[in-house]
Amino acid sequence: MRNLKITLQYDGTNYVGWQRQARGTSIQGLLEDALEPIAGTRITVHGAGRTDAGVHALAQVASVSFPGAHDAPVLARALNAVLPTDVRVLSVADVPADFHARFSAVGKTYEYRIVNAPIVSPFLVRYAWHIHHDLDVDAMKRASSHLIGMHDFAGFQGAGSDVASSQRTIQAIDWENGRGHDNPLVIRLRGDGFLRHMVRNIVGTLVEIGGGRWMSDRILDILASRDRSQAGTTAPAHGLFLVRVEYSTD
Amino acid sequence: MRNLKITLQYDGTNYVGWQRQARGTSIQGLLEDALEPIAGTRITVHGAGRTDAGVHALAQVASVSFPGAHDAPVLARALNAVLPTDVRVLSVADVPADFHARFSAVGKTYEYRIVNAPIVSPFLVRYAWHIHHDLDVDAMKRASSHLIGMHDFAGFQGAGSDVASSQRTIQAIDWENGRGHDNPLVIRLRGDGFLRHMVRNIVGTLVEIGGGRWMSDRILDILASRDRSQAGTTAPAHGLFLVRVEYSTD
Repeated sequence: MRNLKITLQYDGTNYVGWQRQARGTSIQGLLEDALEPIAGTRITVHGAGRTDAGVHALAQVASVSFPGAHDAPVLARALNAVLPTDVRVLSVADVPADFHARFSAVGKTYEYRIVNAPIVSPFLVRYAWHIHHDLDVDAMKRASSHLIGMHDFAGFQGAGSDVASSQRTIQAIDWENGRGHDNPLVIRLRGDGFLRHMVRNIVGTLVEIGGGRWMSDRILDILASRDRSQAGTTAPAHGLFLVRVEYSTD
Repeated sequence: MRNLKITLQYDGTNYVGWQRQARGTSIQGLLEDALEPIAGTRITVHGAGRTDAGVHALAQVASVSFPGAHDAPVLARALNAVLPTDVRVLSVADVPADFHARFSAVGKTYEYRIVNAPIVSPFLVRYAWHIHHDLDVDAMKRASSHLIGMHDFAGFQGAGSDVASSQRTIQAIDWENGRGHDNPLVIRLRGDGFLRHMVRNIVGTLVEIGGGRWMSDRILDILASRDRSQAGTTAPAHGLFLVRVEYSTD
């Protein structure tokens, strides 16, 4: 059977997230529904990351065992013809049989966008966390530097996760210094993998530090504690974008 | 009575346009509804440009005679507290009694966005015209250069307009060479004023030229003919943004 890699972009606003749920429309479900009449059978797609309800993706990756003989570009067009316009297939490619969107991934990049201004642009209101009070971005950057490297991120892990280890490596955190109602502050995190809600819990904590509630080295305490209750609130889903998934074959 | 200048940003997707209509929600109507309980009476606001249904604004300007004594920033906050999040008041300022948003305007800038790619990003689908076939942007630029300066733009004027003269001056047309599903081609037009549907008719014509149906100098024929039927189709509203309104007092 062929193995396909499908790269997708989506606006998560109207969805319950990547993963199929009992209620609500998921990206995974939409993609499986779109594939079923083409494949002539129900097939399961596997996503690289289970983006939560409301989280967006610039390039989510899915893999699927596909029984048909259609050319990959024809498949991409056929899928886009039936998917809603807020979900687009960017590409379909044949990949080796051992490729798995999730287990083959060696790195991921997420972006979190914050509008730090009294008002938020109508064009960003669904795509950034609106924070009215002034953030001390320098303090946030200093704090974030403590996260670079290999750490046990249990203190930043959301409840209900089933992963074996909460050790992860963050390779880089890059910032774009936006300010004003239509120019977001962007925090870009690149790592070998991220725990459930990890980016949103990190950003929620950095925002507490940026607002002056905590000092920068609070990050060190949270890492050492491995206790989620020490970190800040979970930043809202609609500011988060899955930007890229890396594979060793790239 | 005080005279106020109100600068607004809006996502036009859900509205019938700037101007109050018998049916549907207009930006003008929303703003008047928001002002009424603050002013204690119904007051009419005047917009710099009557953006059509679906057209967006980065900085529309309105003027209004306002009876209250509220500080301008307080008014801005009060309006934003009741306006929907896809309409934001960027600023409120006291201006001289003779200021009128429309009649005092000496220039306007519009932007038209085109995604020229097989697919369009979910994040741009409401904010750009999606054109699948390859556009010859160089031919479009050459054609657009014929529009610079003072001309009778009757050939690019939509039906149902009541203006006395169709003579206007375009001072500049600037291009941003975007390409690909998430990187729009941007055409930015600055002029002393624009006729009804003028920008959209210009863009519709440029797209015919970019697609190879017409040569660049077709623009000269349309200008000379003063005949709307010689120009291309009206480009869709959702790619158009009112970017800036200029006043001699700026």
